[in-house]
Amino acid sequence: MSAPTRSHLSDRAAGVRQSAVRDVFDIAMDPSLVSLAGGNPWLSGLPLEELGAAAARLVAQEGTTSLQYGPGQGTERMRQAACTVMAADGLPGADPDLVVVTPGSQAAIDTACRAFANPGDVVVVEDPTFVGALTSFTTWQLDAVATPTDEHGLVPAALDATLTRLRSEGRRVAFLYTIPSFANPSGLLLPEDRRDEVAEMCARHDVLIVEDNPYGQIAFDGAPLAPIAARHRERTVYLGTMSKIFSPGVRVGWALVPAALKREFYLCAESAFIHASTTSQMLATAFVEEFDWQGHVREVTGLYRARARALQTAVDEHWRPGFEYTAPRGGFFLWGRLPPGVDTVELMRAGIEAGAVFVPGAAFTPVEGMHSTLRLAYSFVDEDTLVEGVRRLAPVVQAAVESAERRRPTPSPLSRKAP
Amino acid sequence: MSAPTRSHLSDRAAGVRQSAVRDVFDIAMDPSLVSLAGGNPWLSGLPLEELGAAAARLVAQEGTTSLQYGPGQGTERMRQAACTVMAADGLPGADPDLVVVTPGSQAAIDTACRAFANPGDVVVVEDPTFVGALTSFTTWQLDAVATPTDEHGLVPAALDATLTRLRSEGRRVAFLYTIPSFANPSGLLLPEDRRDEVAEMCARHDVLIVEDNPYGQIAFDGAPLAPIAARHRERTVYLGTMSKIFSPGVRVGWALVPAALKREFYLCAESAFIHASTTSQMLATAFVEEFDWQGHVREVTGLYRARARALQTAVDEHWRPGFEYTAPRGGFFLWGRLPPGVDTVELMRAGIEAGAVFVPGAAFTPVEGMHSTLRLAYSFVDEDTLVEGVRRLAPVVQAAVESAERRRPTPSPLSRKAP
Repeated sequence: MSAPTRSHLSDRAAGVRQSAVRDVFDIAMDPSLVSLAGGNPWLSGLPLEELGAAAARLVAQEGTTSLQYGPGQGTERMRQAACTVMAADGLPGADPDLVVVTPGSQAAIDTACRAFANPGDVVVVEDPTFVGALTSFTTWQLDAVATPTDEHGLVPAALDATLTRLRSEGRRVAFLYTIPSFANPSGLLLPEDRRDEVAEMCARHDVLIVEDNPYGQIAFDGAPLAPIAARHRERTVYLGTMSKIFSPGVRVGWALVPAALKREFYLCAESAFIHASTTSQMLATAFVEEFDWQGHVREVTGLYRARARALQTAVDEHWRPGFEYTAPRGGFFLWGRLPPGVDTVELMRAGIEAGAVFVPGAAFTPVEGMHSTLRLAYSFVDEDTLVEGVRRLAPVVQAAVESAERRRPTPSPLSRKAP
Repeated sequence: MSAPTRSHLSDRAAGVRQSAVRDVFDIAMDPSLVSLAGGNPWLSGLPLEELGAAAARLVAQEGTTSLQYGPGQGTERMRQAACTVMAADGLPGADPDLVVVTPGSQAAIDTACRAFANPGDVVVVEDPTFVGALTSFTTWQLDAVATPTDEHGLVPAALDATLTRLRSEGRRVAFLYTIPSFANPSGLLLPEDRRDEVAEMCARHDVLIVEDNPYGQIAFDGAPLAPIAARHRERTVYLGTMSKIFSPGVRVGWALVPAALKREFYLCAESAFIHASTTSQMLATAFVEEFDWQGHVREVTGLYRARARALQTAVDEHWRPGFEYTAPRGGFFLWGRLPPGVDTVELMRAGIEAGAVFVPGAAFTPVEGMHSTLRLAYSFVDEDTLVEGVRRLAPVVQAAVESAERRRPTPSPLSRKAP
């Protein structure tokens, strides 16, 4: 019998994003490298002994529940725990009946595609945006269309123009996908007034908002800004997760869905995975119900703040001039830019040779071609190691900057237009 | 701001299977009802204390791994544990590198759609087949086309004819979806020779096979038959799961994928959910590595066999004549048929009034319309309760049979064709 060929793949699978960018996640596992690549949370501060005791109890004493099928929408207590977390996100008073628990918020993004998008539809995105969302959009055969951003994130007037243009082109916009707080990868924080303006633009064009907020509570200065969903709940599918404040390994995220769309969202979720792990949901619930989870978030936020500052100091010292970046005000990532002409995919390869790895900007944009941007993750690496990673990369950064400058055409008098 | 309307739903979400059949799963939670509806495994025989100790250890001592992101394809040890389980399924020597762990095998079915099917493609199915697969196919906008079966399951010559017809109609067949062992809901066991013939028909038509085998080890008489994938691995995506032999709550399933298709399958899976719960994978791994898991399977198989026999005796006593069924040789379900004219969706409603619930056959078929079939699950209910459920339903079954007989037109001499 002959082996199957690529003719058996769907169009979407044959076209799924691959390559250098994908492979970096495997390479980043090499323990001899300093990894500035992965957005892993720091877990060593968790009360692991006590969590272990909770895990023992929920298996030994409640095993016929925790190991059994559960409700498709998620357990009632996990949905209530999600509401507790959302209140701390700045979104109080959510109705547990409108929460659909998913195996991580990647699955919630994917469910939003399933529930709201037809093949060929547009999803409007920030550029750069979360690589996992872009991959999901690709497999649903959606066009991710970037709307302009500035140093504060989404530009409401530009969003209006983007939505107007798309409508004039006859395109159906399934939703705006946005990460307003400490975005992955840009780190940007959308100001409060813009949150309302973005929601108003979407209302004007009758477009749904999928608001992804994994990092909102990881705020380095002051309280989290209220999510868009806090004041515009009827139009917003809000995605929350335990991944950054507790554990990504449990794969527990959720969507808070407008009442009018909940049933279908839930059925779409169920068709994909039945429900999130009951065992995981009960452990995540225990963390919210029985532990000082907000104390843990404060503690890791302080740690991430110190790491971000150490990373900034190191790139200031070792990568300047040439490297520009956004100073993180929260979240896990520092987003930077090298001069035009630097290809950060090439730079990544050279960096691996030099002993450190990051994710090149090409991963985070729907725009094909060469990119001079890159993402440095500081969440999982201690301060000394962050500095070591930056130092290892310094010569290759310097060489790439110089090479790009040499290749840049100097304006010649002959090439100037006659006046 | 106005609330969103159904115009925001995708075509697939607006059309997702709903109704009576879906609602029964919620209704079945009512503790005053005897539920013959859900295919839940019996968990009370698990060594819960010892499993709790394992859970405590993997959180307390290995928490920075078990609560962290893991490899997208699944942990190496879970993939090896999957190979151990598959060997007991009758599929020895599987390569862990070709295993993709998923959050339950529903997610593996759904990933197969994503990886292999374009909207409008055909999936060839047994009729009846697994409701979860049908729902997944609907959301991927696939046409589930039934190929004829008999009391042994798929009929190879008929499959050949089905595939020939579909090709002549210019349809792309994404794959054959089949449950050859103790199928949900039919309970049928495809004989060994037919397994090869089915694979040969698919090879002749260059069609992939997605073989779903959650129940293969729950064999009431003799060893499991070797899966199709055992002799036809290059053409078969084999789906395994911990759900029936250990725990569905952990949501750990997997696909064994032909080498030529693995990379894209894995990337499609990752785009949907990143990876299955690390915590769950490690608990499932512990069950396979550290416990007498095959002893547990033998124990629950004996229990299910006794329950199946008790259920058969009860329906023989209380529902005959009128009720025909397939005697289960394994698995969780008894599939039965009432006389033509009985609508089992109506019967289900009457049954709930009478205090017991089952799933009507309409859930399990791609064919619209009225169905006189039904599925009784015996896996989760003790023998006395099974008998009680059958007794509660007996008057409504009897009434439905009599009503159908009254309505059936008696052949009249006037309506006969002249010779």
